[in-house]
Amino acid sequence: MKKLISALFIGALSMHANAQNADSIMISKIFVEGLTHGQSYDYLREMCKKVGSRLSGSPKAAKAIELAKKKMEGTGLDKVYLEEVMVPHWVRGVKEEAGIYSSQNNLKLPVNICALGGSIATPEEGIKAKVIEVKSFEELRAMSKDMVKDKIVFFNRPMDPSKTNPFEAYGGAVNQRGRGAVEAAKMGAVAAIVRSMTTEIDRYPHTGAMHYEDSVTKVPTAAISTVDAELLSRKLKNDPELKFYFRQSCKTLPDTLSHNVVGQLNGTQFKDKVIVVGGHHDSWDLAEGAHDDGAGVVQSLEALRILKALGYKPKHTLRCVFFINEENGLKGGVKYAELSREKKETHIAAIESDAGGFTPRGFTMASSTDAQIKKAQRWKPLLLPYGLYILEKGHGGADISPLMKDNVPCIGLVPDPQRYFTVHHAATDVFESVNKRELEMGAAAMAALIYLIDQYEL
Amino acid sequence: MKKLISALFIGALSMHANAQNADSIMISKIFVEGLTHGQSYDYLREMCKKVGSRLSGSPKAAKAIELAKKKMEGTGLDKVYLEEVMVPHWVRGVKEEAGIYSSQNNLKLPVNICALGGSIATPEEGIKAKVIEVKSFEELRAMSKDMVKDKIVFFNRPMDPSKTNPFEAYGGAVNQRGRGAVEAAKMGAVAAIVRSMTTEIDRYPHTGAMHYEDSVTKVPTAAISTVDAELLSRKLKNDPELKFYFRQSCKTLPDTLSHNVVGQLNGTQFKDKVIVVGGHHDSWDLAEGAHDDGAGVVQSLEALRILKALGYKPKHTLRCVFFINEENGLKGGVKYAELSREKKETHIAAIESDAGGFTPRGFTMASSTDAQIKKAQRWKPLLLPYGLYILEKGHGGADISPLMKDNVPCIGLVPDPQRYFTVHHAATDVFESVNKRELEMGAAAMAALIYLIDQYEL
Repeated sequence: MKKLISALFIGALSMHANAQNADSIMISKIFVEGLTHGQSYDYLREMCKKVGSRLSGSPKAAKAIELAKKKMEGTGLDKVYLEEVMVPHWVRGVKEEAGIYSSQNNLKLPVNICALGGSIATPEEGIKAKVIEVKSFEELRAMSKDMVKDKIVFFNRPMDPSKTNPFEAYGGAVNQRGRGAVEAAKMGAVAAIVRSMTTEIDRYPHTGAMHYEDSVTKVPTAAISTVDAELLSRKLKNDPELKFYFRQSCKTLPDTLSHNVVGQLNGTQFKDKVIVVGGHHDSWDLAEGAHDDGAGVVQSLEALRILKALGYKPKHTLRCVFFINEENGLKGGVKYAELSREKKETHIAAIESDAGGFTPRGFTMASSTDAQIKKAQRWKPLLLPYGLYILEKGHGGADISPLMKDNVPCIGLVPDPQRYFTVHHAATDVFESVNKRELEMGAAAMAALIYLIDQYEL
Repeated sequence: MKKLISALFIGALSMHANAQNADSIMISKIFVEGLTHGQSYDYLREMCKKVGSRLSGSPKAAKAIELAKKKMEGTGLDKVYLEEVMVPHWVRGVKEEAGIYSSQNNLKLPVNICALGGSIATPEEGIKAKVIEVKSFEELRAMSKDMVKDKIVFFNRPMDPSKTNPFEAYGGAVNQRGRGAVEAAKMGAVAAIVRSMTTEIDRYPHTGAMHYEDSVTKVPTAAISTVDAELLSRKLKNDPELKFYFRQSCKTLPDTLSHNVVGQLNGTQFKDKVIVVGGHHDSWDLAEGAHDDGAGVVQSLEALRILKALGYKPKHTLRCVFFINEENGLKGGVKYAELSREKKETHIAAIESDAGGFTPRGFTMASSTDAQIKKAQRWKPLLLPYGLYILEKGHGGADISPLMKDNVPCIGLVPDPQRYFTVHHAATDVFESVNKRELEMGAAAMAALIYLIDQYEL
């Protein structure tokens, strides 16, 4: 009996070892292919340099969609198609300007500013008003309305640099950008300006989405660079009567027809069961959206290209989606989930890359049961040799989040986060800030995970 | 009895838990201090922009040493001193030039080149000769001497991009740089040119150390950029009779007096037992040596600054050393170990940062027993929250390696390696290529390890 058990045990072990070994060989091939013949970097260069920024509804977004369709077709996927999506269409308008006027001599000190996405314009002559600086909504709400009335509220709570994960610092500061205008208007302010969401102290203003409420007066809102935020704060201490001036001519046009771009490798065993991988195709308008999220979309296509190049025949349908409109609406993600429900498709997993094209460190899983997370964690020994040591509960991705309603495990690629907020939503998010090897490692990491899920499900 | 054992066990457990908890709080404080009040980035800016490159024996290296001493004194260390070291003094000389001459029309195509460190000059009029391209020493040695005689040997084996760890790819290619001139001369060649050690395909030549042998004719040697290496290789296929021309006026001057810069916080319990942390102060001459190894030295001082700022009283003496001459001699590291032996000091650990100022991923341990490695691995749960998941046998550091003779555990900081060879020994290794948060995370990681070793030894 003991012998039999031992034999069985050894049999099971060796089967397990063989499977692990085959998986380990396959994953090694994935990384070799990705690092040797990777095409994501060249595609990203083309997207950034020949198209540029891709704000939802813009002609450049449409041009990027055309290019993406061609790229997917060129990759030899089994099926490439567009999904129609109506998207918000906000435009920044002509050159923005801003400055600090001393109350003593009315001299203007110029300031780097950018309208926040979704904001209304200032009057044509701009807004010039006294400034009230606050660090939080609580501080603002505790003031008397008289103190705030007709002023510009200046939200100046920095991202906390002591957080080792800058996303946590972002989470602790970004409500100023999203709701600052509403909170300022409620107190009678004429505008809101916000310290840029970055731990860098530099001269680049960072844009990003803001929201109005129907019941609250809409006031214009903009971000100023962190250098200018610190300058303004210092000046206010010596000259509380100074005035801030800014002018912006942004506006929201009617919703515009746009598209998700979808490509897939058909499953050989379970064609109706889908593993989707994606990122968002749209970007803010100040730069090229290289990290946010050009990186994510080119990596998603590259993950499928790698598997195809290796002659891999997937059991399930592997699909990559370039979602439109993550930045200011999420209409692409919502539409994709809707259409998928209509087609009665089943998603066994959704993977998103939307945290920059930096060296990957692993994956976080949302909308996953403990059993699913445990199953994924069994793959750790296969992924650790590639520096992928994170496999835990956490954020999936905005574009795939509408699939969470259907209990689809939503998995986010976790790149190294330290440099993300240097470029996030700012003029610095250009192709040159992306490193080829880091980008390629992320694409290969996603291909490896897709392979494991395709083999073993979750 | 059982109860007693249980009670003891619980006691031990809770003591263990308390210690872990205190350590975890201390390490959290280290990272908060490092990310909030870090001074390494500003110091690195000063070193790079006010001093610049710091090749051993150069006036700028001397200037950097002066600055370092001031910085250490300004940090309030208990003792700051210099150690005299005689170092090699190689100089690049005037502007280098190179080109490819077509055999058909003698037209010159300019090529980006740099002399390898230690090389002799070409004759004043340069060297112009036919080229023989090889991928390895074996390939070269298998040729007849007639084929190689009077030619320039072109070593063109790339760093293998498929290695996920680029240091492994470097290890697989760098003998061409170090021994290429010797191997070429043995076959009767007049010079050797080497493809730059980088996986990037760009126009920057990367320098680095090369060595002659006394018994072999010395021939000049230089690196060309990877773009030019690929160009030359393509041209050779169509025109095997083409000639390569290059000119360089580098030379080796007499050895020069230089210095290690040393600063320490005295141990409160074991003053004669030392934990040393360091990097190398010298750099190549083509840029600012920001990552290699300005990052390492500023991080080493910062690690001590952090502990001091937190009011930490070390049990052992904590010492930081800015070693001189790692790049072309290792004289600083050798001298430090010699002097330490003379002073009958005991080192309980040596830590080096010399792989760039990128996000840290952990530590590798050389000259450590299995028991020491196991002990360090018990600290994993304390370090993992900071992304430090590597704690294993591996490379320590060149400058601390002379301490290995005395069985000192030599530990290397492991930063993310993907971008290192983009800048390594090239004109691109400038301050702007360093990210503040990544640099600071590395310094804090070293401070955390120093703290743990100081508390528990190895």
